[in-house]
Amino acid sequence: MATCDGSEARAALERSVLRRVPPLLTDLYQFTMAYAYWRAGRHNEPAVFELFFRDNPFGGGFSLFAGLSDCLLFLQNFAFSDDDVEYLRSVLPAGTDAAFFSYLKELDCSAVSVSAVPEGSVVFARVPLLEVCGPLAVVQLLETSLLCLVNYASLVCSNAARFRLAAGPRRRLMEMGLRRAQGPDGGLTASRYTYIGGFDLTSNALAGRLFGIPVAGTMAHSYVTSFSSLEEVWPQTLVPCGGGGPIDFICLVKGWLGRVCQLLGSKTSLVREGELAAFLSYAIAYPQNFLPVIDSYSVSCSGLLCFCAVALALCELQYQPLGVRLDSGDLCRQSLEVRRVFKECNKQFSVPQFESLIIVGTNSISEQSLAELNKKVSNEIDVVGVGTHLVTCTRQPSLGCVYKLIEVRGRPRMKMSEDPEKSTLPGRKSVYRLLDTDGRPQMDLICLSEEAAPKAGVSLTCFPLGLTKTLQTVTPAQVTSLRLDVFTCGQITFPLKSASESRERAQISLQTLHPHHKRLQEPHDYTVALSEQLHSLVSDITKGNSKGSNFLLSN
Amino acid sequence: MATCDGSEARAALERSVLRRVPPLLTDLYQFTMAYAYWRAGRHNEPAVFELFFRDNPFGGGFSLFAGLSDCLLFLQNFAFSDDDVEYLRSVLPAGTDAAFFSYLKELDCSAVSVSAVPEGSVVFARVPLLEVCGPLAVVQLLETSLLCLVNYASLVCSNAARFRLAAGPRRRLMEMGLRRAQGPDGGLTASRYTYIGGFDLTSNALAGRLFGIPVAGTMAHSYVTSFSSLEEVWPQTLVPCGGGGPIDFICLVKGWLGRVCQLLGSKTSLVREGELAAFLSYAIAYPQNFLPVIDSYSVSCSGLLCFCAVALALCELQYQPLGVRLDSGDLCRQSLEVRRVFKECNKQFSVPQFESLIIVGTNSISEQSLAELNKKVSNEIDVVGVGTHLVTCTRQPSLGCVYKLIEVRGRPRMKMSEDPEKSTLPGRKSVYRLLDTDGRPQMDLICLSEEAAPKAGVSLTCFPLGLTKTLQTVTPAQVTSLRLDVFTCGQITFPLKSASESRERAQISLQTLHPHHKRLQEPHDYTVALSEQLHSLVSDITKGNSKGSNFLLSN
Repeated sequence: MATCDGSEARAALERSVLRRVPPLLTDLYQFTMAYAYWRAGRHNEPAVFELFFRDNPFGGGFSLFAGLSDCLLFLQNFAFSDDDVEYLRSVLPAGTDAAFFSYLKELDCSAVSVSAVPEGSVVFARVPLLEVCGPLAVVQLLETSLLCLVNYASLVCSNAARFRLAAGPRRRLMEMGLRRAQGPDGGLTASRYTYIGGFDLTSNALAGRLFGIPVAGTMAHSYVTSFSSLEEVWPQTLVPCGGGGPIDFICLVKGWLGRVCQLLGSKTSLVREGELAAFLSYAIAYPQNFLPVIDSYSVSCSGLLCFCAVALALCELQYQPLGVRLDSGDLCRQSLEVRRVFKECNKQFSVPQFESLIIVGTNSISEQSLAELNKKVSNEIDVVGVGTHLVTCTRQPSLGCVYKLIEVRGRPRMKMSEDPEKSTLPGRKSVYRLLDTDGRPQMDLICLSEEAAPKAGVSLTCFPLGLTKTLQTVTPAQVTSLRLDVFTCGQITFPLKSASESRERAQISLQTLHPHHKRLQEPHDYTVALSEQLHSLVSDITKGNSKGSNFLLSN
Repeated sequence: MATCDGSEARAALERSVLRRVPPLLTDLYQFTMAYAYWRAGRHNEPAVFELFFRDNPFGGGFSLFAGLSDCLLFLQNFAFSDDDVEYLRSVLPAGTDAAFFSYLKELDCSAVSVSAVPEGSVVFARVPLLEVCGPLAVVQLLETSLLCLVNYASLVCSNAARFRLAAGPRRRLMEMGLRRAQGPDGGLTASRYTYIGGFDLTSNALAGRLFGIPVAGTMAHSYVTSFSSLEEVWPQTLVPCGGGGPIDFICLVKGWLGRVCQLLGSKTSLVREGELAAFLSYAIAYPQNFLPVIDSYSVSCSGLLCFCAVALALCELQYQPLGVRLDSGDLCRQSLEVRRVFKECNKQFSVPQFESLIIVGTNSISEQSLAELNKKVSNEIDVVGVGTHLVTCTRQPSLGCVYKLIEVRGRPRMKMSEDPEKSTLPGRKSVYRLLDTDGRPQMDLICLSEEAAPKAGVSLTCFPLGLTKTLQTVTPAQVTSLRLDVFTCGQITFPLKSASESRERAQISLQTLHPHHKRLQEPHDYTVALSEQLHSLVSDITKGNSKGSNFLLSN
């Protein structure tokens, strides 16, 4: 296990990878709409979109916002290549005016500004996380790419936070989902954002290099099964940690194996020679990093015995073995047996190093199995490796972020819908987080941007979203503004955060949240409310009383 | 809607994108194992791995194999950069011999050979899809990347094939999942492989450019809600399709709106002016491509009326409107109402063009809702757009492919396990597909590679995998070898297939499969069997009788 600390060079590298998102990675209809705006001379009208999701994922009470750095780098580098434009010329309808393609070639985000919640913040459903202002055609074109960059990042980050809560603070968590992710970039995205969500380690070497995430890993079953005989062990000697002449390590281990089998009443004849050879070879290569997978044949008849023999020999030469990995069967039961044997060895052979051996468990771990494991006093697993259920977010593989138009030329816009759930909140807004006297978030308040900010200690009335339509009164002890200006007229105006900085924010943000909102099952609903003024605007537009959405006058 | 046909330039482009998978995108333990092999002088021992999955996904009876082109390009370009190696030096344990890093810098796949099932083939659980031979350390290092490239590609391709079966052959299917995929590359991968699996169209412009997939799309709700008044429509005139002077299109549409409202007994006063303006603008920009989304406010009170008015005006000017999109509520019920209105318009106004209008439905479509929709006679949806459930594979978001060592230095290797399900099949193999007299696949037979191939018309005995341990006799009418040599000593030896070529193979491969294996619910199990010789080898190794996995002699 090792860490690569953040550095300027790494930050530059990170940026060079993230900025590769090409602006053509979007839905075709963004271009047909852009053309229709352009044709009507509306493409430069000032417009505002906001990005939000409708429900907290996994039946939970909160989410983490992630993907912001990727969005900012995407915006900063937004420009179509000549090849992109030629492709668009070949697929847009034949009548498309040629001047539109010249317009596309000149486009960038120099007239776009964005305010956003900082990456790693605890956020809630229906709260606008990103507000994007700029020329109508440009901010429309950004939709799919921004959604693509925020959706999965926030989902998998929130999933990681739930695994973290399920695991409890003591147990270390390792992400190892690369092989089950949606292709190479899916795996890289997963590694970055599960780390931000609270994981400690990743198996993904490229993620380690690019994002400075601590990487870990020792061996797979294939390594073990590749050995069949002690003749394959080479070199056969090991120099003691403190120095001295090389010791015949095979001979030393064989001696320990006899003693271990005798202690445990096991048969040497059931031990797999290939497994012993594999462990011996690994220990000779990495005497300070010995942590084998011990279930390639049978944990109790072979793997555990081989481990103890090699680890005892390492201890005799003053090395500190690390521990074992279990990858199949009943992890809890096996971990108890393994720990019992470690204690027995220490008792019999006086190897205090055996008291600090760790047990790693990795077998289709889900949030639920992790929570159960954490509840059981009866297990001895120190590090949990999670792959599939973490990166694919099995319980809910999509967050469902949306990007909705809220204002054009200063006039609020609203989408009504056959599904009332799909209606949007019109107008530019400010979002405030109200804290109670303990400093815990008690409500997110969405106001129109022209309203005065709520004041600490002053009561206010608002309409909580959800089933109740009733007015509520609240007196916040503190008020914070949730969003910051992060991108102004084409420039990033907020320092890009490294993965570990965002991870720290996530941990702090989660700590302040009341435990009843963090509960994995049946959490208390966190209140998100509309100001009276915003609530009135929604009512007016819905009834057609506002200038924002005229009914057609019969004329 | 438009197609970009495959071309040499596009193929080169495709290659340049796919080959970007860096070899450092793998699990760290591949390097610690490679080091241990190298340290023991075993890194160049000839070794063989195979790639397979353990269960067909989605409770189905088959899968499609995909991701091969990506794998081949990855292998061809496999090499570590100096920066990669420096990063590895910083994270591998301190004692790692410096000569190992020089070795890594020289590595490539020039000694690697691969045989594989062609992309787009119907395949089944437990059948080795890819066999990778080469120096032990190198083929070990390839594991995670190959799994990452095959796992999701095959999963989402199989998911698409199920959607295709659920939709029936007539209905067109469009993939629109980019915003819900695992980041940019997840979205691109989804577009490519759902097309291969049987989708007809994608919304993803970059996928269209890179892979030649037909792209489609017209407008989102934001386009509609961005308009509030007819004053925003510009230009206000349209030249008839056959030529002539410009016509005041707003005036023409207003006239038609009055007649439509009268016909349907609707109130002009409930029509949203902004929606009418949006449709007018779009029709003026793209008179031959008019297909608006009609549920931004209310389908029956506004959207459908606006569509009919604009479409009737287009017909009057000899244009052919395309149809409408429904994106919320009960799609089936609404589609019936929409079709009824289209027929009524034709009856009243003699517009035969209204008989060929299409209805597109896009509202959280799942395989199940698609199957239900297909069963109902009572719907009129011609094109279905699918996003989230398709690309995230909600029902089962991971295929669980594995990559297992089967031979080292000519000796078979096998992993036993605490979970019998996780045991592997040892030795190099040939895989044959046996066809019945109708030319339909009846069994996949896995033999040891040294065995003679089964012969058409000659009976053979074998052991089907699964619960039954009984010998079965079968007489194939035809025998085909399932895998081909695709990569030999560092060179791609099988033509790389374009997305549309692989799509064609998938369709043909699925057509030959018996309907009872293709059933979405409770399909018949397809038989995968072991030859007697392979079955004996498994028994021998399990009992420890084989040279492959000695027990330790007590000595």
